[in-house]
Amino acid sequence: MNQENFSLSERMVSSSYIRQGAQARRGHEQLIRQLLEQGKCPERGWSELTVELFLGELALMDSNNFLGNCGVGEREGRVASSLVARRHYRLIHGIGRSGDIAAVQPKAAGSSLLNKLTNSLVLDILKLSGVRSVAGCFVVPMATGMSLSLCFLTLRHRRPSARYIIWPRIDQKSCFKAMITAGFEPVVVENVLEGDELRTDLEAVERQIQTLGAENVLCVHSTTSCFAPRAPDRVEELAAMCSKYDIPHIVNNAYGVQSSKCMHLIQQGARLGRVDAFVQSLDKNFMVPVGGAIIAGFDKAFIQEISQMYPGRASASPSLDVLITLLTLGATGYKRLLAERKELYSFLSQELSSLATAHGERVLHTPHNPISLAMSLDGLRGDGDNAAVTQLGSMLFTRQVSGARVIPLGKEQTIGGHTFRGFMSHSEAYPRPYLNAASAVGITRDDVALCVKRLDKCLKALRKDAGGGDGCISPDPDV
Amino acid sequence: MNQENFSLSERMVSSSYIRQGAQARRGHEQLIRQLLEQGKCPERGWSELTVELFLGELALMDSNNFLGNCGVGEREGRVASSLVARRHYRLIHGIGRSGDIAAVQPKAAGSSLLNKLTNSLVLDILKLSGVRSVAGCFVVPMATGMSLSLCFLTLRHRRPSARYIIWPRIDQKSCFKAMITAGFEPVVVENVLEGDELRTDLEAVERQIQTLGAENVLCVHSTTSCFAPRAPDRVEELAAMCSKYDIPHIVNNAYGVQSSKCMHLIQQGARLGRVDAFVQSLDKNFMVPVGGAIIAGFDKAFIQEISQMYPGRASASPSLDVLITLLTLGATGYKRLLAERKELYSFLSQELSSLATAHGERVLHTPHNPISLAMSLDGLRGDGDNAAVTQLGSMLFTRQVSGARVIPLGKEQTIGGHTFRGFMSHSEAYPRPYLNAASAVGITRDDVALCVKRLDKCLKALRKDAGGGDGCISPDPDV
Amino acid sequence: MNQENFSLSERMVSSSYIRQGAQARRGHEQLIRQLLEQGKCPERGWSELTVELFLGELALMDSNNFLGNCGVGEREGRVASSLVARRHYRLIHGIGRSGDIAAVQPKAAGSSLLNKLTNSLVLDILKLSGVRSVAGCFVVPMATGMSLSLCFLTLRHRRPSARYIIWPRIDQKSCFKAMITAGFEPVVVENVLEGDELRTDLEAVERQIQTLGAENVLCVHSTTSCFAPRAPDRVEELAAMCSKYDIPHIVNNAYGVQSSKCMHLIQQGARLGRVDAFVQSLDKNFMVPVGGAIIAGFDKAFIQEISQMYPGRASASPSLDVLITLLTLGATGYKRLLAERKELYSFLSQELSSLATAHGERVLHTPHNPISLAMSLDGLRGDGDNAAVTQLGSMLFTRQVSGARVIPLGKEQTIGGHTFRGFMSHSEAYPRPYLNAASAVGITRDDVALCVKRLDKCLKALRKDAGGGDGCISPDPDV
Amino acid sequence: MNQENFSLSERMVSSSYIRQGAQARRGHEQLIRQLLEQGKCPERGWSELTVELFLGELALMDSNNFLGNCGVGEREGRVASSLVARRHYRLIHGIGRSGDIAAVQPKAAGSSLLNKLTNSLVLDILKLSGVRSVAGCFVVPMATGMSLSLCFLTLRHRRPSARYIIWPRIDQKSCFKAMITAGFEPVVVENVLEGDELRTDLEAVERQIQTLGAENVLCVHSTTSCFAPRAPDRVEELAAMCSKYDIPHIVNNAYGVQSSKCMHLIQQGARLGRVDAFVQSLDKNFMVPVGGAIIAGFDKAFIQEISQMYPGRASASPSLDVLITLLTLGATGYKRLLAERKELYSFLSQELSSLATAHGERVLHTPHNPISLAMSLDGLRGDGDNAAVTQLGSMLFTRQVSGARVIPLGKEQTIGGHTFRGFMSHSEAYPRPYLNAASAVGITRDDVALCVKRLDKCLKALRKDAGGGDGCISPDPDV
Repeated sequence: MNQENFSLSERMVSSSYIRQGAQARRGHEQLIRQLLEQGKCPERGWSELTVELFLGELALMDSNNFLGNCGVGEREGRVASSLVARRHYRLIHGIGRSGDIAAVQPKAAGSSLLNKLTNSLVLDILKLSGVRSVAGCFVVPMATGMSLSLCFLTLRHRRPSARYIIWPRIDQKSCFKAMITAGFEPVVVENVLEGDELRTDLEAVERQIQTLGAENVLCVHSTTSCFAPRAPDRVEELAAMCSKYDIPHIVNNAYGVQSSKCMHLIQQGARLGRVDAFVQSLDKNFMVPVGGAIIAGFDKAFIQEISQMYPGRASASPSLDVLITLLTLGATGYKRLLAERKELYSFLSQELSSLATAHGERVLHTPHNPISLAMSLDGLRGDGDNAAVTQLGSMLFTRQVSGARVIPLGKEQTIGGHTFRGFMSHSEAYPRPYLNAASAVGITRDDVALCVKRLDKCLKALRKDAGGGDGCISPDPDV
Repeated sequence: MNQENFSLSERMVSSSYIRQGAQARRGHEQLIRQLLEQGKCPERGWSELTVELFLGELALMDSNNFLGNCGVGEREGRVASSLVARRHYRLIHGIGRSGDIAAVQPKAAGSSLLNKLTNSLVLDILKLSGVRSVAGCFVVPMATGMSLSLCFLTLRHRRPSARYIIWPRIDQKSCFKAMITAGFEPVVVENVLEGDELRTDLEAVERQIQTLGAENVLCVHSTTSCFAPRAPDRVEELAAMCSKYDIPHIVNNAYGVQSSKCMHLIQQGARLGRVDAFVQSLDKNFMVPVGGAIIAGFDKAFIQEISQMYPGRASASPSLDVLITLLTLGATGYKRLLAERKELYSFLSQELSSLATAHGERVLHTPHNPISLAMSLDGLRGDGDNAAVTQLGSMLFTRQVSGARVIPLGKEQTIGGHTFRGFMSHSEAYPRPYLNAASAVGITRDDVALCVKRLDKCLKALRKDAGGGDGCISPDPDV
Repeated sequence: MNQENFSLSERMVSSSYIRQGAQARRGHEQLIRQLLEQGKCPERGWSELTVELFLGELALMDSNNFLGNCGVGEREGRVASSLVARRHYRLIHGIGRSGDIAAVQPKAAGSSLLNKLTNSLVLDILKLSGVRSVAGCFVVPMATGMSLSLCFLTLRHRRPSARYIIWPRIDQKSCFKAMITAGFEPVVVENVLEGDELRTDLEAVERQIQTLGAENVLCVHSTTSCFAPRAPDRVEELAAMCSKYDIPHIVNNAYGVQSSKCMHLIQQGARLGRVDAFVQSLDKNFMVPVGGAIIAGFDKAFIQEISQMYPGRASASPSLDVLITLLTLGATGYKRLLAERKELYSFLSQELSSLATAHGERVLHTPHNPISLAMSLDGLRGDGDNAAVTQLGSMLFTRQVSGARVIPLGKEQTIGGHTFRGFMSHSEAYPRPYLNAASAVGITRDDVALCVKRLDKCLKALRKDAGGGDGCISPDPDV
Repeated sequence: MNQENFSLSERMVSSSYIRQGAQARRGHEQLIRQLLEQGKCPERGWSELTVELFLGELALMDSNNFLGNCGVGEREGRVASSLVARRHYRLIHGIGRSGDIAAVQPKAAGSSLLNKLTNSLVLDILKLSGVRSVAGCFVVPMATGMSLSLCFLTLRHRRPSARYIIWPRIDQKSCFKAMITAGFEPVVVENVLEGDELRTDLEAVERQIQTLGAENVLCVHSTTSCFAPRAPDRVEELAAMCSKYDIPHIVNNAYGVQSSKCMHLIQQGARLGRVDAFVQSLDKNFMVPVGGAIIAGFDKAFIQEISQMYPGRASASPSLDVLITLLTLGATGYKRLLAERKELYSFLSQELSSLATAHGERVLHTPHNPISLAMSLDGLRGDGDNAAVTQLGSMLFTRQVSGARVIPLGKEQTIGGHTFRGFMSHSEAYPRPYLNAASAVGITRDDVALCVKRLDKCLKALRKDAGGGDGCISPDPDV
């Protein structure tokens, strides 16, 4: 309420109470002021009340909510279902304009502000999380893979004759498809085995650059976050190499914001060499629903070039989710989540080690991977087939252990014409089958404890009866 | 509740009442059964209660909502903010898999069902709206423009050496950018003026095919819904031509689902020639928030090929919105909206005509455009400058008339390296300035009446004082 | 947002758009201003956005939502469940103080304003609905019956020695119990039969006054809205009689706000005689959940005396519901609902008449009852028992016809020590069994049509087989 | 979804995923089963999803949500505003019937189940909290005071000639008014000072019984939870005395559920003597909005008698709130809240003591009061006036310290004709002014710390300048 309305209220309710109410209102306005002024994630999280108050204020500024609006266009923010209107806080116009997904819409000052602020807060968080010199970023309502495609498509205009993308192998479909979709030819560089760990083959990368000719290479496409025993790519060295050969460098940082190590790699890459853009998933790093990504980089102009490649207005939904989440958590809350994740990584590592020892297995030594762990499944190798390993996978599924992937030997998969031997293991012939588990942001101690308990039961059951039945079906929340 | 729980309830509440409650529950289940069985938009709309009941049931089937789930992966559908969880009905996993945006996710049976059902309902609605022989479609959480890009990128794999897209000019940025973003060279074919109306220059299109060589043409990219005085493209003839030259044909049907004429063009095109895919906006046709599109076509395999091009999981938000909307409206409700739109088109046309007459102008004769109308602004031409026309635009903005665009003469705009003379008018030299107004789905009689009233006031004010002040600032909802 | 925050926003979004947003915000503030200034139900209903904006503003003014509050009391508006907080819009402190349910709370300026405004709006609506000279009222979160008790308990302090309440019989338990609960002895005055209609026996009332002695009579307790064939009491004459004998007069106007006739009776009663308070249900008149009532009267001091009798703070929930409802409907919307109700009364009357004729029955002639109708069930009288009538009742229940009551002959019921012969029929020996149906606010044409259709089927089934089975169980929404 | 619908879903989504979804659904059903079977507060709290699923199921069973319902009654659960419907989870029919607030409604099996279950859970919690032999209880949507009135009104029917209620003085308006409203004459028994503490004067009570004559005494009305330095009444001895003289005993246990000591008193009272009913507030004990109470007792028949005194249906809102809260917290969660409260009582006591020492004051020695503390304000006594004490109160208000009451000397107040000397201090002449602070359920460590900090500042400011200005206005959340 404005001052006039507060004054009118004093006719009905004692003015000292009303004045205190008005003063309390200013407290919330003050938080909004700081947000607008600084464009940063507030240190302390906001209450749901302040968050919803702010979203309500944004909605008021969009033309579909003007009391006196009359619309005779084809895109007026009309909504047929009130359930739908409510769930979007009546912010209907999406983000961006046909020319630029980061641009301001005349019909929707509120949604435009939402868009700008979200990008600003996300930039702040990227800095906080370790990429201190990041210069620009924007949220895009597309998967990480599709966002990578958009980066590649943008680069095409800078390097119209380049056809190849050099890509240290990581066995995850969508980042491979990102290159195919954009119309480029991925040049897969196999990893090298160092101890248990799979690491970037820098020499092979350089060889490929020389073979193909730097001018024919659209970019190097490296990866940070990945499943053990693969380690994050040697981003610093790749960045330096890209710098040397004047080749763009795009980093797939899918769920790397949650790890200071991954972020450090990117920061160092940019300092020591060249990182043109790095792309990260919203859902995996910020605990929001699937569907958005952040495209970020160190050269504002290039990031804007990418944002101008998106043809049309876009969904504001992922931006809204991440804005609500960051305002609610505050910087403190987000940093606490990251600290907990790190702590639970150690816990997971210990628990898996004990379990492995008890079953004659071991946790693979992958010191460079800060998120994912792998435990050998040598005991389930059988006579060359993967039956027991696969069965373990389905036993875990049945017991509602999700995210624990089993990696059998020798699987083959063809994607976009390219055949990957040893698919899922990032290697043509990894020496053993294994199981992955990860400590990702939002994980709880209970998740770890339950997973290890159930895994223990499964392994025992498998040992007793290698091909036997899987009796236990209904998951007991305590076991 | 299941039968057991109903029985237990009879201990507390008379069994005849409980049995009636259980029977009432079956009524809602019955509606869900029909939906699952037929995969069609229900004839009558559902109540909000049934809709939310159904969404709740879907959520229960996603692993993030399992009571006994433990997650040790990097993507577990965790949500930090309960505001965010609620607004997505706890459906967090998005849609699709890395391999295919239309595919099923093991972790998320509920979200997968949502995805399948939405695509099925939307297909039903496309049929109902006039494209009776459509064979497949899917909702994609991207703007129409970006969705067109995805179609072009898919075609690249079929026609790797084709570089050109033939495009009858329509002055809307994002569809032009869609071609640029995908990395192709748009070949702009100017329209021909027939009376007041701008129509496809079929001969020029054919000439271009012959000049460029059919094998070098990725596709013809035509448009249905557009601003008058441009008419929808001659889709039937273009489809036949594409058939003849064996060139793919992609139709931008942005807001054409709401018009039986636009839909008829596509249906006829497919019958008489070739339409490979047609793309339409969710928000403009279904009154949902900005951010989604439907890619549809007559060959299931090709549509699936496109859906397999999207790298990664995607936001379920646009699918959820359109599902809620269609279940709430029902087929009857949607058809009623379309009928009202058509009726209000006539009303708008009459009102504009009267207004035009009163101000010495006229409504341009554009019989082929079923949605948009144009009124001449000859009286505001001034001495060759566009000052008065531009001022009218800003007066309308100030008065909260949204969607009524003014088109001055001779504007030039460069997009992606191509310079458009006479930009916004779909023509290098349209003979007169004009104003657009459209009757799009969801428009009300009040919108039309208010717009005409305010427009009248503005025109009067402009006449009185061509360069004068614009006194009236605060919009009165009644004027 | 305040001016400062709008200005800050102009750094991110063009100032002309922000200014338009700020101006649009003022539109909503303006509506709130009118509400606060006039304390009346707005003529036009508000959008949900404005309603929720306003409720959010109220919440900000309550101490439990102060950002800097620290509480060391026993009643601080703390809420354990966020579901609960949300559903009350974070208005937790209830209404009133221990001294007065209409009083202002220091800790809760927002809830206090809610309370005051609701009472003010409700007063306005009572005036609009026909009791133009009503002087004061308040919403109380209790049933009509309990609210009547509160009135009687208040009167006790004015008339400490009075023990009796004179009450023209109406067969509805809670209004009878209201007197028992308050500790008084109801003196039941039987109605007189005029044609089909049961009307107040004025002479008997006066006889009782004289017999008991006016000073021993706490009040006359009359009723407006009731089931046909009982008519509303002769409130004018009773009011005059109360005036003459100096006896208070309390009117049970349960669902009478929706009928201009009932309201007129009260208005006339107050004009020509004495009406001390009249009590009406919130749910039945305003389409809100069960649980609240309005106590109103023509002497502000007496109404305040009643409000001061409620010991303790009270639930704000019914006040909140009626406030939201009235703001959403607006006076226009409420009046339209009343007009529709009246129209559907005629429709119901016609439909029932046709049905009655077809089955050899008739609609009883009850011209003074504006809401409820009765149709004879002579054909179901059987051999003195009520079997067929009762069966009709259970058949209607099974077929989800709710609210259609069947009244058998000769039922006896004892309540609070008093035995009512012919219970439910308001008469010791009404000549025939019958069925009631009412046209109450919110009823639809479909309700009427379906009810008559199903009733027709039931009557046919009963005729075929007076004691036979009731085959049809599942209700078809269309039949 | 039922089995049939799951099967149909397998057509669209792989059956193993659907089956897992169906199994997950059973997990939630299982929780509901336990609830229905045991009627107890679940040990572990439910997720919001399960809670809302359950409420949705209840709503389906109410006739206003039947798909095929047609209503021709005056009370059909119609709702005009969808905001209102949603916030009540579409449970519109309230609780109870005209005959009994705890009874089942034919039209509303779901709401009836809600009512029964809530009463059952609340009974369980009363047992858990220490009154192990409680036999019956019900939630009533009225303030504690009004609920006490209802108890007194019920007793009137058992003791028609009794006029007096004996009441050991406690200075809280609404419990005094509860007696006045019910039409009885309170007989105030002053407390005795034992050290700092005010305790029940048992001899004076017995004297009054003898003076008035036991048969003329409606009941003894004692109190547990209260502000220090008053202690909870000597409930055991009073109960024994009531037993001896055959007088009913009603205990005002306003916020006593949260204290095992208060609950123990009642349990012992019932064991050693007579407690007919005890009444507690919902909001103060269960952190729900203001407006409900629980009436409980050791004789089921008497409790039912009270529930049958409420004339009419009642609001389900308080029942719904407490049900949601208890399901969400679980017994474990509620017990944790109680344990925290107790712990923070010690913390508050220590902090206040330190503060008191620093200012030359002391915390009064009130060992029998488990919730409230009092700190002397001897230094603010001034020259016999209360100016400084009063100023402290308003300074605390301004600084958003809520719940910290200052008690000046010698205040006089007349309520319902009775004049209380020394009002607020429970004593005609308490020797010193003091300040109250309480550790009530839901309090946080921050509340305590902030309160003590701000209080310290205020006391310092007052010392510096006894009549001076109060500079600090805006509360800093950290100070």
